[in-house]
Amino acid sequence: MKIINLDHISATPVLPEVQEAMIEAIKMNYGNPSSQHKIGDKAAEALNAARESVARLINSPIPKEVVFTSGGTESVNLAVKGVAFAHSNKGNHIVTSNVEHNVILRSLRRLKMMDYHVTSVPVDEYGRVNPDHVAKAIKDETILVSIMHSNNEIGTIQPIEEISQITKEKKVLFHTDAVDSVGVVPIDVQKLGVDLLSFASNPFYGPAGVGGLYIRRGIKVWPLLDGGVQENNKRAGSENLIGIIGMGVAAELTLRDMDSRLSHLKKLREKLLQELPQYLTEYHINGHPEYCLPNLVSVSIKYIEGESVVLMLDEDDIAVSTRSACAAGALQASHVLLSIGRDFADAQGTMVITFGVNNTEDDIHRFLTVLKDSVKTLREISPLYTQTNAAKAAQA
Amino acid sequence: MKIINLDHISATPVLPEVQEAMIEAIKMNYGNPSSQHKIGDKAAEALNAARESVARLINSPIPKEVVFTSGGTESVNLAVKGVAFAHSNKGNHIVTSNVEHNVILRSLRRLKMMDYHVTSVPVDEYGRVNPDHVAKAIKDETILVSIMHSNNEIGTIQPIEEISQITKEKKVLFHTDAVDSVGVVPIDVQKLGVDLLSFASNPFYGPAGVGGLYIRRGIKVWPLLDGGVQENNKRAGSENLIGIIGMGVAAELTLRDMDSRLSHLKKLREKLLQELPQYLTEYHINGHPEYCLPNLVSVSIKYIEGESVVLMLDEDDIAVSTRSACAAGALQASHVLLSIGRDFADAQGTMVITFGVNNTEDDIHRFLTVLKDSVKTLREISPLYTQTNAAKAAQA
Repeated sequence: MKIINLDHISATPVLPEVQEAMIEAIKMNYGNPSSQHKIGDKAAEALNAARESVARLINSPIPKEVVFTSGGTESVNLAVKGVAFAHSNKGNHIVTSNVEHNVILRSLRRLKMMDYHVTSVPVDEYGRVNPDHVAKAIKDETILVSIMHSNNEIGTIQPIEEISQITKEKKVLFHTDAVDSVGVVPIDVQKLGVDLLSFASNPFYGPAGVGGLYIRRGIKVWPLLDGGVQENNKRAGSENLIGIIGMGVAAELTLRDMDSRLSHLKKLREKLLQELPQYLTEYHINGHPEYCLPNLVSVSIKYIEGESVVLMLDEDDIAVSTRSACAAGALQASHVLLSIGRDFADAQGTMVITFGVNNTEDDIHRFLTVLKDSVKTLREISPLYTQTNAAKAAQA
Repeated sequence: MKIINLDHISATPVLPEVQEAMIEAIKMNYGNPSSQHKIGDKAAEALNAARESVARLINSPIPKEVVFTSGGTESVNLAVKGVAFAHSNKGNHIVTSNVEHNVILRSLRRLKMMDYHVTSVPVDEYGRVNPDHVAKAIKDETILVSIMHSNNEIGTIQPIEEISQITKEKKVLFHTDAVDSVGVVPIDVQKLGVDLLSFASNPFYGPAGVGGLYIRRGIKVWPLLDGGVQENNKRAGSENLIGIIGMGVAAELTLRDMDSRLSHLKKLREKLLQELPQYLTEYHINGHPEYCLPNLVSVSIKYIEGESVVLMLDEDDIAVSTRSACAAGALQASHVLLSIGRDFADAQGTMVITFGVNNTEDDIHRFLTVLKDSVKTLREISPLYTQTNAAKAAQA
């Protein structure tokens, strides 16, 4: 039986047109874009073309503002550490939020080991940052504000434009981790008003292991990778040209298909949310009802463990995730769910469903059917569920 | 006419078997190796298989000692900065040599901006480090010795085993940048006795944008990329699985073909060196006559500029380089050539020829023929050559 992929946040399938372009690039056997001879020239042309496509996707007016990286993780690390190191003469304070991705959390933890200080602002019950809190957190020593565009666990989209008004007034650099937004929802770096924006190729059906960092012209960032003069002197190393070419084509397809993808994803999400009450009792939907990703649903299911649901669904060839795959090794409760007020048990019982362009309404139906059975089985063996029901029966 | 590639140090063509494996991987549309469901399982298997192949290539006894990176540049940055940051409580001094690749030079320049200190030991006229100089340079505060395995401009191979004896005695970590050696000459991390060893996939006909860092078990290194727990917690980020699979296959082919490749490359190199006097006057061959890469010849040609030769050869569809492609943007004289005693003019007149498995003896012949004409033309328009010849004629 076909595997139903409802875990697109871990990995999307690379689209056929992107695959073809990458296969073509492999057969072309490109040289090194930095070489000074013909073999290198063709590689340099292909690199520039991809950069222009990717710049268009985020509406960067100058393609050189896009620095290709090895993925979202490198982009975020380069943004945060690159700004911190380059501006340490001005200050050593960074403002972030309580619901950022592990990449930000751990990059900032690393910087704290190097005498930087961090203020993390809270979020409301929907996972949204209050821009006033950001304004209040900014001090004279603040060199960077880093707030994600959309949350990878609950899908909430942050008020980035409002925050960028504040950072502009206060003359502090602003980075947004838009890894789960770029290519999923329309992103315009000029409209958002950010100085740096991290993104990756895979969320829009390009290959994994390729990403980009938008760095507004004139912003000083220390490279994490020193060496050659590649990527406008901001990221040394021979390029993963095959991956970059794939990302370029994926960006073009996304620009072409954004509207139809959005309506398809929203339809699936609506269907799931509408039908869920027929299949499940005692659950919460996490995240903001309006400011949210169109492809993500986070459900906290009472009395069970998310990990167990993932494993049971997997036996029925349905892939979902408990949280980001990056954190799969760590069995702690999600800091995001705790930040929006879920208790430890609810956080443990959470499942993240992420749709892609290939999902169908039938996929939703099969998922709901299997979910219902899985939750029933798991609750039957849950001591907490049994106790709570016994208590309810006694009260009745 | 077919382009003759004699610039394999900038980029090697990816071998057909490697291309096939990568195309197969693209069509497989792998998931995320860190996921907890079936889609991710296959990806994790492919990742592990590649790691085992690559570990075998460098004779690492524990595959987990190999950390996949985005290429040689990242490997070197991770080694040098990762050790520097992780061991700053012990000291802030690093020992290196005068002939390292720009990646080391610039990584160390970056660390100097962060209060680290560097001692750089000289080399002899062949570009070789004297291990005694390394021993003398090590101080109480020394946390790392970083000496390249082979030089990317002149091909000289360093006495790594002798140096590792010293670093072991003195209990200092030892990293070697083996980017231009791994897959070209046999490399055995256990025999070399190093703690860290950087390498990349492309020098052995794998894709660009993929590399590895050998980190001996137990060595503490701070990740440059913080985030997920990938790569044994030493390098976060979703993997470039397609590139890694290509690198794995390239490693297997290299293990299989090392002997025949070596004899082929040595034969080409011998032919070039033997026939050169029939085509060229007044030149030096740079590098060590015995301890040298089998695929590289560095020639300093008097009275001309290397850049001009590269451009003229390119017009005749022959690709060579003046130095590493990474430094192509910078028109300074090579620090390596100056370090081995070449003067500024000779350094400017240097050309690097690097062979690959697909080169033939006919390629050498055509190269020499075109080189002779190019040098004749360039010398005829060289004021220095005209003056020198006039002076010689006057003396005669």
